[in-house]
Amino acid sequence: MTRLFNDPDEFVEDSVAGFVAASGRWVRPVTGGVVRSTRGAEPTVAVVVGGGSGHYPAFAGLVGPGLAHGAVMGNLFASPSAHQVRSVAKAAHEGRGVLLSYGNYAGDVLHFTQAQDRLREAGIDCRTVTVTDDISSAPPHEREKRRGIAGDLVVFKTAGAAAEQGHDLDNVERLARLANDRTRSLGVAFGGCTLPGATEPLFTVPQGRMAVGLGIHGEPGIDEVDIPTAAELAQLLVERLLAERPDDAAPTGRVVPILNGLGSVKYEELYVVYGAVDRLLTEAGVEVVSPEVGEFCTSFDMAGVSLTLLWLDDELDRLWHASCDTPAFRRGSVDGRVVVTTVDDDDDEIETIGPAAEESRRAAAVVAHALDAVAAMLDDQADELGRIDRIAGDGDHGIGMQRGSRAAAAAASRAVTAGAGARTALQHAGDAWADKGGGTSGAIWGEMLVDLGAALGDDDAVDASALSAGVGRMKDAVMSFGKATVGDKTMIDAIVPFADTLRDRLAQGDALLDAWATAADAAQAAAEATAQLTARLGRARTHGDRSLGTPDPGAVSFALVTRTVLDVLKEDA
Amino acid sequence: MTRLFNDPDEFVEDSVAGFVAASGRWVRPVTGGVVRSTRGAEPTVAVVVGGGSGHYPAFAGLVGPGLAHGAVMGNLFASPSAHQVRSVAKAAHEGRGVLLSYGNYAGDVLHFTQAQDRLREAGIDCRTVTVTDDISSAPPHEREKRRGIAGDLVVFKTAGAAAEQGHDLDNVERLARLANDRTRSLGVAFGGCTLPGATEPLFTVPQGRMAVGLGIHGEPGIDEVDIPTAAELAQLLVERLLAERPDDAAPTGRVVPILNGLGSVKYEELYVVYGAVDRLLTEAGVEVVSPEVGEFCTSFDMAGVSLTLLWLDDELDRLWHASCDTPAFRRGSVDGRVVVTTVDDDDDEIETIGPAAEESRRAAAVVAHALDAVAAMLDDQADELGRIDRIAGDGDHGIGMQRGSRAAAAAASRAVTAGAGARTALQHAGDAWADKGGGTSGAIWGEMLVDLGAALGDDDAVDASALSAGVGRMKDAVMSFGKATVGDKTMIDAIVPFADTLRDRLAQGDALLDAWATAADAAQAAAEATAQLTARLGRARTHGDRSLGTPDPGAVSFALVTRTVLDVLKEDA
Repeated sequence: MTRLFNDPDEFVEDSVAGFVAASGRWVRPVTGGVVRSTRGAEPTVAVVVGGGSGHYPAFAGLVGPGLAHGAVMGNLFASPSAHQVRSVAKAAHEGRGVLLSYGNYAGDVLHFTQAQDRLREAGIDCRTVTVTDDISSAPPHEREKRRGIAGDLVVFKTAGAAAEQGHDLDNVERLARLANDRTRSLGVAFGGCTLPGATEPLFTVPQGRMAVGLGIHGEPGIDEVDIPTAAELAQLLVERLLAERPDDAAPTGRVVPILNGLGSVKYEELYVVYGAVDRLLTEAGVEVVSPEVGEFCTSFDMAGVSLTLLWLDDELDRLWHASCDTPAFRRGSVDGRVVVTTVDDDDDEIETIGPAAEESRRAAAVVAHALDAVAAMLDDQADELGRIDRIAGDGDHGIGMQRGSRAAAAAASRAVTAGAGARTALQHAGDAWADKGGGTSGAIWGEMLVDLGAALGDDDAVDASALSAGVGRMKDAVMSFGKATVGDKTMIDAIVPFADTLRDRLAQGDALLDAWATAADAAQAAAEATAQLTARLGRARTHGDRSLGTPDPGAVSFALVTRTVLDVLKEDA
Repeated sequence: MTRLFNDPDEFVEDSVAGFVAASGRWVRPVTGGVVRSTRGAEPTVAVVVGGGSGHYPAFAGLVGPGLAHGAVMGNLFASPSAHQVRSVAKAAHEGRGVLLSYGNYAGDVLHFTQAQDRLREAGIDCRTVTVTDDISSAPPHEREKRRGIAGDLVVFKTAGAAAEQGHDLDNVERLARLANDRTRSLGVAFGGCTLPGATEPLFTVPQGRMAVGLGIHGEPGIDEVDIPTAAELAQLLVERLLAERPDDAAPTGRVVPILNGLGSVKYEELYVVYGAVDRLLTEAGVEVVSPEVGEFCTSFDMAGVSLTLLWLDDELDRLWHASCDTPAFRRGSVDGRVVVTTVDDDDDEIETIGPAAEESRRAAAVVAHALDAVAAMLDDQADELGRIDRIAGDGDHGIGMQRGSRAAAAAASRAVTAGAGARTALQHAGDAWADKGGGTSGAIWGEMLVDLGAALGDDDAVDASALSAGVGRMKDAVMSFGKATVGDKTMIDAIVPFADTLRDRLAQGDALLDAWATAADAAQAAAEATAQLTARLGRARTHGDRSLGTPDPGAVSFALVTRTVLDVLKEDA
């Protein structure tokens, strides 16, 4: 378990600060993460990696000459926001384009894609290669749906080496994709980590049992078996991975095995397993090349191990063996570097507070008040929301909502003090929620607040009809995210009845408070359906059983928010 | 806990094999451990490090250009034997002498010193620098008694860099000693590892509590407190270490902080602590240089962390920053190396079976029979002996005795089949016990058997008086070890009454079996006194309470052996 922290809410900030203090030889901090603190003689394509924190050395430990140019550092197990991605990518950009690379998780895809769109709009050529090495997470004909685990290192290293050698963005992208196409991983787990401040592990595996294919955030696996011997485990991993040899790789090909400890399966133990892996690979006729045994993608002190096979061709061989120098992965020697002293000002992200009508400023004050109340409510509910989310997800919904709402309330408050109208206050609040809340819910709530603000404007009083129109735009925002995140947790089930009921009741002549109360009841009913599903799932769940679908803490939290806002509207009336 | 293994008894062999398979770029296997697989252009002093296994990357992960030349790899948490040290040192030797460096533990001191004596006899100039960085393990005026923990890395790196730069043995020794003199560490722990095949952790710390200064094998600490915040822990570590600033280091000196995770305190968590360490050091006015945060000396998945401060001077600064390339620690770039293909034959260790008198061969058969019976008895008693040892020691006595006696019985059996007399059979058995049993008990039992054999010879029948003389020599052997290992567990309390009673009863005309039985009773009485002490200690023990002294599993096992041998002598009579 994680025992050493100050304020658990500040864990990532504290950890990033410590990492930066210890790693100035390689990195410097920028908004949203880190970029290299040194620069080579010639500009290169910039490789920007990232994802949630908790997986060190993924991602920031892999920044340095010959590997990544920057790492976006999200909250614990939560995707960074699009704003963070954009900020790191801009700081890393050397004028030759940016390759974004990260593990294939819905929240990361959402935010990195948003950032890519914005970077392209800003004239920066930007490409994406997601890592999809985990063979347990989807069948071979749906390889593009697979998660990324320790194969991250292979793809990042390949892209970083290609950039270092001066390749253009087309080639860096092609080579990173080639590396991903020729990389397969499979993991097993014996138990999950306990996040800072949490009292329960993220997941448990029964004593004496081993979950096969269980994800690094506790995502369901494909099987559960008695803990095998080291040799039997090696056989399981090697057989399943060899069965997925890439079509274009020879059975006698050159293979780099990477045996990765997830946190508390330690080195001597890993080497016992590796001995059997090496033997089995050799017996299978492949040529073992430059193996790696260690910790490359962790999950705090999760008890688990994964094996990755990289099937080399000539290009990948050269790139894998090229020199690099990062805090956590070094090879060969890199030539002289110049220390960079650029200050990160991130100035184009600063939103000025424009003029606003007196009525809109009054509405902004209600917004700030409502966000304060929502943050207080979520402080109370965070544990329960986390519990619901843990049943089929990664358990971060409660803490993400708590962090996001708190940051949003503070940002709205600052904006109101500076004279902001409703639009500006909600824009600041939305950006803050996305940045600090992280994950999919952070992105969605951030976008919802920004869209609500756009509907309300800075120039007019907010009446019932404006508010209903704003809620409609919030619904649209969620729906458009929904398309990008099928199967992910969203509050679509709750916001649709809420927005539609609010609109309909107002059209039928109800007063705002009455209409809102009826709409909130509709959202609550949807949330309760979710909660019942959750309870059933909680009883029935075994690893690998996905038949009951995904429960929806997002609907629960959305309904809670509508109730809290109703109370504020009543006070204000 | 350690879950992945094949036969727990073969854990270290399997782990070493896997390490060698994965690390051929840096190391090649030799009897007793590994040496570099590459060689530089010019011969250098050879730096040979080592100790028990279970602390990776200490020790084998630190072998490579610019760091160690060889690592002796003992059994789990057990010192390697003198034979292993000698073998690795001879393979590493490049003609310019050998520096032995290792953490200051009684068993390691015993075996490395024996090896040093033998290497010197063989004409190899050999020096020793033990690492004594752990400030919790003895007061400042007894620095030479302190244990070595993560400071190992500093001393090894300094010595390796000095050797790499061509310094002679005098200078390499001087610089290693300087590094040790300027290095201080302090560790804390929350819980111990569970060794392969064991069902209980090596030690526990009460939930919510933190043991201060607890050793990496569970040796008692100096304090136990509630788990502090990360910042409070940093303050505790920094304050106590700064209070022990070396006399010749300026308060505004340059300091390398090394924050070491023992196994399951993971990277993000370490960085949270490091952030506070960095701030406190800077506030204290020292200049922080090239910090290291990671896992440099582990104890499987022990939950703990240590902070090491290295106070640089100009010489140490250059050596600490010199390039090196090893499996687990790399810095800068090392120049071209030639791959070494030397075969490890260790041929001078092979003992030929000389001619032996028929009577002595019959005695040898009884020896082999007795050792078989002892091994079987120790199979039964290993858990209980381990339990006794865990109360104040590292819990390896049972398993060490089991392994050692098994190897001794097998070696004696082979020797008897090849026609050995008593001396030769006991010599083979003793060497095997020391090699496989490891630790202090392995060395002592190995030496006892060899000395008994020397008394019995290969040329004569073994009568009661010869046997009593042999037991007397065994006692002398233990006593002479005892001098070197004050405070360590030995069987002195039991062997002295046993040997003296045997001698006296025979002198008074008792038959051998009667005299032996009386002597065994005396040993048993001593062992029971020990067991009672153990039981009291078990009830009273808290971390840091050393007032009750050290119980003696060695006396218990010695008494058990005398009983078993009595049974064999009866059968044989």
